[in-house]
Amino acid sequence: MNQILQQMPVLGVTIIGGIMGLIFVWYFSRKVLSANPGNEQMQTIASLIRKGAIAFLTREYKTILYFMIVMFIVIFFGIAKKTAIAFLVGAGCSMLAGIIGMNISTLSSSRTAEKCKLSFNEALSIAFPGGAVMGLSVVSLGLLGLGIVYLAFIWYLVSTGSDLTKAVYEATSMIVGFSMGASSIALFARVGGGIYTKAADVGADLVGKIEEGIPEDDPRNPAVIADNVGDMVGDCAGMGADLYESYVGAIVSGLVIAIFNLNDPKSAMLCLLLSVVGIIASIIGVFFVRTKSDQDPQVVLNKGLIASVVFYILFSLIVILGWYKNINAFWSVMSGLIAGMLVGFVAQYYTSGNAVKSIAEQAKTGAATIFIEGTATSMLSTVLPLIAIAIASIIAYKLQGVFGIALSAIGMLALTGTTVAIDAYGPIADNAAGISEMAHMGEEVRRRAERLDAVGNTTAAVGKGFAIGSAALTALALFSAYAETVGLGSTGLNILDAKVIAGMFIGCIMPFFLISKTLQAVGRAAYSIAEEVRRQFREIPGLLEGKALPDSAKCVDITTQAALKKMILPGLSAVIVPLLIGILLGKEALGGFLAGSLITGVPLAIYLANAGAAWDNAKKYIEEGNLGGKGSDAHKASVVCDTVGDPFKDTSGPSLNILLKLMSVVSLVFGSALIYLHEQIANLLPFLR
Amino acid sequence: MNQILQQMPVLGVTIIGGIMGLIFVWYFSRKVLSANPGNEQMQTIASLIRKGAIAFLTREYKTILYFMIVMFIVIFFGIAKKTAIAFLVGAGCSMLAGIIGMNISTLSSSRTAEKCKLSFNEALSIAFPGGAVMGLSVVSLGLLGLGIVYLAFIWYLVSTGSDLTKAVYEATSMIVGFSMGASSIALFARVGGGIYTKAADVGADLVGKIEEGIPEDDPRNPAVIADNVGDMVGDCAGMGADLYESYVGAIVSGLVIAIFNLNDPKSAMLCLLLSVVGIIASIIGVFFVRTKSDQDPQVVLNKGLIASVVFYILFSLIVILGWYKNINAFWSVMSGLIAGMLVGFVAQYYTSGNAVKSIAEQAKTGAATIFIEGTATSMLSTVLPLIAIAIASIIAYKLQGVFGIALSAIGMLALTGTTVAIDAYGPIADNAAGISEMAHMGEEVRRRAERLDAVGNTTAAVGKGFAIGSAALTALALFSAYAETVGLGSTGLNILDAKVIAGMFIGCIMPFFLISKTLQAVGRAAYSIAEEVRRQFREIPGLLEGKALPDSAKCVDITTQAALKKMILPGLSAVIVPLLIGILLGKEALGGFLAGSLITGVPLAIYLANAGAAWDNAKKYIEEGNLGGKGSDAHKASVVCDTVGDPFKDTSGPSLNILLKLMSVVSLVFGSALIYLHEQIANLLPFLR
Repeated sequence: MNQILQQMPVLGVTIIGGIMGLIFVWYFSRKVLSANPGNEQMQTIASLIRKGAIAFLTREYKTILYFMIVMFIVIFFGIAKKTAIAFLVGAGCSMLAGIIGMNISTLSSSRTAEKCKLSFNEALSIAFPGGAVMGLSVVSLGLLGLGIVYLAFIWYLVSTGSDLTKAVYEATSMIVGFSMGASSIALFARVGGGIYTKAADVGADLVGKIEEGIPEDDPRNPAVIADNVGDMVGDCAGMGADLYESYVGAIVSGLVIAIFNLNDPKSAMLCLLLSVVGIIASIIGVFFVRTKSDQDPQVVLNKGLIASVVFYILFSLIVILGWYKNINAFWSVMSGLIAGMLVGFVAQYYTSGNAVKSIAEQAKTGAATIFIEGTATSMLSTVLPLIAIAIASIIAYKLQGVFGIALSAIGMLALTGTTVAIDAYGPIADNAAGISEMAHMGEEVRRRAERLDAVGNTTAAVGKGFAIGSAALTALALFSAYAETVGLGSTGLNILDAKVIAGMFIGCIMPFFLISKTLQAVGRAAYSIAEEVRRQFREIPGLLEGKALPDSAKCVDITTQAALKKMILPGLSAVIVPLLIGILLGKEALGGFLAGSLITGVPLAIYLANAGAAWDNAKKYIEEGNLGGKGSDAHKASVVCDTVGDPFKDTSGPSLNILLKLMSVVSLVFGSALIYLHEQIANLLPFLR
Repeated sequence: MNQILQQMPVLGVTIIGGIMGLIFVWYFSRKVLSANPGNEQMQTIASLIRKGAIAFLTREYKTILYFMIVMFIVIFFGIAKKTAIAFLVGAGCSMLAGIIGMNISTLSSSRTAEKCKLSFNEALSIAFPGGAVMGLSVVSLGLLGLGIVYLAFIWYLVSTGSDLTKAVYEATSMIVGFSMGASSIALFARVGGGIYTKAADVGADLVGKIEEGIPEDDPRNPAVIADNVGDMVGDCAGMGADLYESYVGAIVSGLVIAIFNLNDPKSAMLCLLLSVVGIIASIIGVFFVRTKSDQDPQVVLNKGLIASVVFYILFSLIVILGWYKNINAFWSVMSGLIAGMLVGFVAQYYTSGNAVKSIAEQAKTGAATIFIEGTATSMLSTVLPLIAIAIASIIAYKLQGVFGIALSAIGMLALTGTTVAIDAYGPIADNAAGISEMAHMGEEVRRRAERLDAVGNTTAAVGKGFAIGSAALTALALFSAYAETVGLGSTGLNILDAKVIAGMFIGCIMPFFLISKTLQAVGRAAYSIAEEVRRQFREIPGLLEGKALPDSAKCVDITTQAALKKMILPGLSAVIVPLLIGILLGKEALGGFLAGSLITGVPLAIYLANAGAAWDNAKKYIEEGNLGGKGSDAHKASVVCDTVGDPFKDTSGPSLNILLKLMSVVSLVFGSALIYLHEQIANLLPFLR
C-alpha cells in the first residue's frame, strides 16, 4: 500500500511529459504557420488537397463512429463501464492526434514549396517541423490520455472507498480499453487511408501516365488532387494512427504484465517513465535536424535520428539505474531498440543498392522476371528480421520473463515521436513537389522538392522497420497479457492440444484474408477512379489541351466513398473473428489463433513492405537512366511491378501490423467474457468443449 | 505378447498388398508397351525426351547419393544401424518407383500421340494406364518396402534373443528412418525437378514465344525438348516422389503414435491394413477409367476417382468394423478423406469459372491489375482449406487423440495411387501434344492431344489439393510423433515459453526462405537457357527457317546442371536448420520451430498453387478468344502473369509440402540425439539453456 503510494507521482510526471510534448506541438505549428504560404494559385491547390483530406478524415471518423458506439455499448454493459470510457478516450486521443497532425501537414506543403524557391535547406526547415507536429501529437496525446485516464480511475476508485492496491489492480484491468480504442481507430485509419492512397495513385497513373502519357502530378489529370490527398490520409494520418496504437499497446501490455504477473507497481511505472524520456529524446532529436546550407540533407535527417537514439539510451540508463535499480530492464529495452533498428537496416539493405540493381536487371526479360526476382529477394528479406525479433524476445524473456518482452516493445517504440516525424515529413515533401508542378513553379523548385522527398524515403525505410518490429513485439506482449489474464499463464498453452493447433490453423489465414481484401479493394477502387478519369477526358472539352479544369472534387469523392466502403469488412472481421473463436472454441483455441496469426503476419508484413519498396526503387533506378531509362521497355516493365508493389507496401502490409495488435487487444479486453460465453455455449453444444 | 503375435499376419498382408500392386504395374506396363510407338520421326523425338529425362534422373540420383552417404553414416553411427538401413531402403524404393514410372511414362507419350490419330478415347486408353504405372509403383513400393523392413527388423530382433514386445517397439523406433529416406529423395526430386521444368518452360517461352514469335512446342526452338523433359521430371517423377513421401510419412507417424502413445500394436497394424485396401481401391479405380467413344472424357476420369473413393470407404468400413472394432477410427479416416477432397474442390473453385473470369477481366488495365486480383483471389482461397484442415484435426483428435490425426492423414492419402495416376497422366498427354506438333502430325491429332491434356489439368487440381492437405496432416502427425518421442507429450509444448516463441519466429521463415531460393533458381536458370537459345538462333544458320536442326541436347544439359546445382542449398537447409535449432536451443524450441513452419507453410503452399493455376487458366480463358483473344494486349498481360505463376505452382509451392514433412521427420529421427547434444552444448554455453 505504502509502496504503491510512492509510485503515484510517476503518473503526474507522465501527464507533465504529455503536456510538454503538446507545448512543442504548438511551438512547431507556430513555426510552420508563420512561413509564407505562397501565391494564390499555390494556396488554391493546397486548399483543394486540404479540403479533400479533411473531408475524408471527417467522413472516416463518422463511419468509425457507428462502430465505436456499438463497441462502447458492448463494453459498457458487457465488460465494465470504465473500460468503455477508456476505450472512448483512447480512440478520441487518436482522432485528435490525426486531426492536429493532418491540419499542420496540409498547411506545411505549400509553405515548403514556397521555401523551395529559396533553398533546399530552407524547405527542410518547414517540412521537418511540419512532420514533427504529427510525431509529437501522437506520442504526447497517447501518453497524456493514458496518464489522465489511469490516474482518474485510481483516484475515483480510492475516493469511492476502494483501497489503493485494489484500485490500481482494477484501474489496470480497465486501462486495456484505452489500447483497444487506439487499435480500432488505427485499423480503420490504416485500411481506409491505405486503400484511398493507393487507389488514387493507381487510378491516376493507369489513365494519366499509361494511357494518355502525361507526367505525374499533371494538373490536367482529374485524379491528381485525389492522389495528393491520398499521400496525406494514408502516409500521414494512417501511419500516425498506426504508431499511436503500437505505442499505447506496448505501454498498456507492460502495465498489465507488471501488475498481474509481477504484482509490482514500480515496474508498471517504469513503462510510463521510459515513455516520458522517449518523448524528451524525440524532441531533442527534432532540434538536431538543423540546416546548414552546405550539408548533405541525408546526413541532417540521420543526425536527428541518431541524436534521439543516443539521448534515449542515456536517459533510460539514468532512469533504470537511478530509480528502478535493475540493470536487466535496461538490457530488455536495448534488445528491442537494437532489434527494431536491425529490422530497419535490413529493410534498407534489401530495398536499395545491389539488391535493387539485380531486380532491375531482370527488366531486360520483362515484367515477369522482375516480379519473380523481387518476390524472391523480399521473401529472403524476412529471414534476418525474424531472427532479430526471436533473439530479442529470448533475451528479454531470459532477463525479465514476460515483462521483459513488454519492455523490449517499449524500447522499440521509445522513439515513435522521431520515426513518425520522419514518416510524416514524407507526404509533406511529396505534396510540395505536387504543388510545385501543378502551380508551374519551374524545374528548379520541383527538383528541390523531389530531392526532399527522396531523402525522406530512405530514412522512412528504417521507420517502417520499427513499425513492423514493434508490431510483432507489441502483439506478443499483448498476447502474453491476454494469456496472463485468462489464466493460461499457469497452465501454459500447449501446441500439442488439438484445439490450440486448430486455432493456429485458423489464425494463420487472417493475414491472408486481410491482404486479399485490401488488395482487392485497391484494385477495384482504382478501376472506378480510372473510369471516372477517362470519362472526364472524354466529356470535358479542352481538358487534355489544358484549356479546361478537371472536376477533381468528383475523383476525391469517389475515392473517399470506395475507401470507406471497403474498409468495413476487414476492419470488422479483425474484431469479430477472435471473439467468435473465443466463444465457440474457448480460450486455448483463441490463444492458438493469436499465435498463428502473429507467426504468419509478421513475415508477410515484412515481405509486402520490402517487395513494394524494392520494385519502387527498381523503377527509380531505371528512371535514373539505367537499362534504357524512362520510356524504354525495361521501364514499362518496372512500372507494372511498381503498380503491384504500391498496395503491397502502403495498404496491405501496414494493415497487417495493426491486425495483429488489434486481435490481441480485443482478446485481452474480452478475455473473461469470452470464457463465460464459451462455457454457456459448451453447455448447450457439448462437442464444442 | 500373445496379443502382438496375433497382429503379425497383417505384416504379411501388407507385403502381399505391395506385391499385388506391382503385378498391376507390370500389367499396365505391358498394355502400354504393346501399342504402336508411331513412325520413325515420332520415335526419334520421343527418344530424345526419354534420354534427357533419364539422364536428368540419373544425374539427380547421383547428386543425391553424396547426401545419402553422409546421412547414412551419421545415422548409422549416431542413431542406430537399423535406422540407417531403413533410411536407405526408404530412399531406394522412392528412386525405384521414380525409375519405373518415368520409364513407362516416357514410353507412353509417342504411343498416345499415335493413338490420337484414331480417336480421343483410344488415346486415353494408353495415357491413363501409363500414368497408373507411376501411381501404383509409388504406393506398392512404399508399402512393400515398409512391410519388408518392418517385418525383417522384428524377425531379426526376435531371432537375436529379444522378446517380441520389445522387438516391435525397437523396430518401430527404427522404421522412422524409412520415412526420412523417402522425404530426402522427395525434397531433392521436387526441388530439382521443379526448377528443371519451369526453367526450361520459361527459358523456351522467353525467346521462342515472346522474342521470335514461334508457337509452343515448335521443333525449331532448341529448348523445346528440354521443356518436354521438364514435364516428365517435374510433374511425373517429382510429383511421384512427393506423394510417395506423404504416403510413407503418414503410415510411419501412425505406427509410431500407435506403439509409443497408445501402446497398441493392433492400431499400428490398422494403419497398414488401411493402406492395403487403399491400393486395392486405387486399382479398381483405374479399371473404371473406361472408354466409350461417345463419352465426355472428364466424366470418364471422374468416374475413376469416384469409384476409388467409394470402394475405399466401403473397404475401410469393413476393415474397421470387422477387425479393428472401433468405429471412431472410421470417422477419423473420413475426416481426412473429406478434408482432402474439400481442399481440392476449393482449389478447383478458385482456379476456374467466375473466379478466373474476374481475374482475366483485369487484363483490360494490364498485367499489374491481373496480378493484384490474382494475388487477392488466391490468398482468399487459403481460408476454406485451412478451416477444413482445422476441423478435420479437431474431429480426429476428439475421437482418438493424436492417433486420430495420423489416421486422418492416412485417410487423406489412401487414394494416392489414383491421384498420382491422374497427375502422371498429365505430362504424358502434354508430351504427346508436343510430339504431335514436332512430328507435324496435323491439326486434328494435336487438338485431340491437347484436349487430353486439358482434361487432366482440371482433375489434377483436386489431386494437388490432396497433396497439400495431406502434407499438412502428415506433418502434423509427424510433429506429434516427434513430441511424443522426445517426451513433450507429457509436459506439453507451451507457446508462452520464450524458447517456443523464438522457435516459432525462426520456423516461420523457412517457407519464405525456400520460396525465395527456388524462385531465384528458376529465374536464373531460365535466364541462362534463354541466352543459349538466343545463341543458337544467332549462330546456327537456317535454324529459324527450319532448314537446320537445333542442338537440343545442349539445352537439356544446361538445364540439368542448373537445376541440380540450385537444388542443393534449399535441400540441405531443410535438414540442417532443424538440427541446428535442436542442438542450440533444445527440444522445445525445435517443437516451436516445426509448428511455426507448418503454420506458415500450409497457407503459402495453397496460395502459390492456386495463384499459379488461376493465372494459367486466365491466360487460357483469353486464348479461347475472350477479351481480344490471342495476340491482344490483354493476352500479353496474361502471359506475364502466367510466367510468374508457373514457378509458383510447379516449383515453390510443391517444394513447401515436402519441406514441412522433411523437417518433422528429421526431428523425429534425430530427436534423442539432439537432446543429448543440446545438453552438451548447454554445459559449455549455459546461456543457451
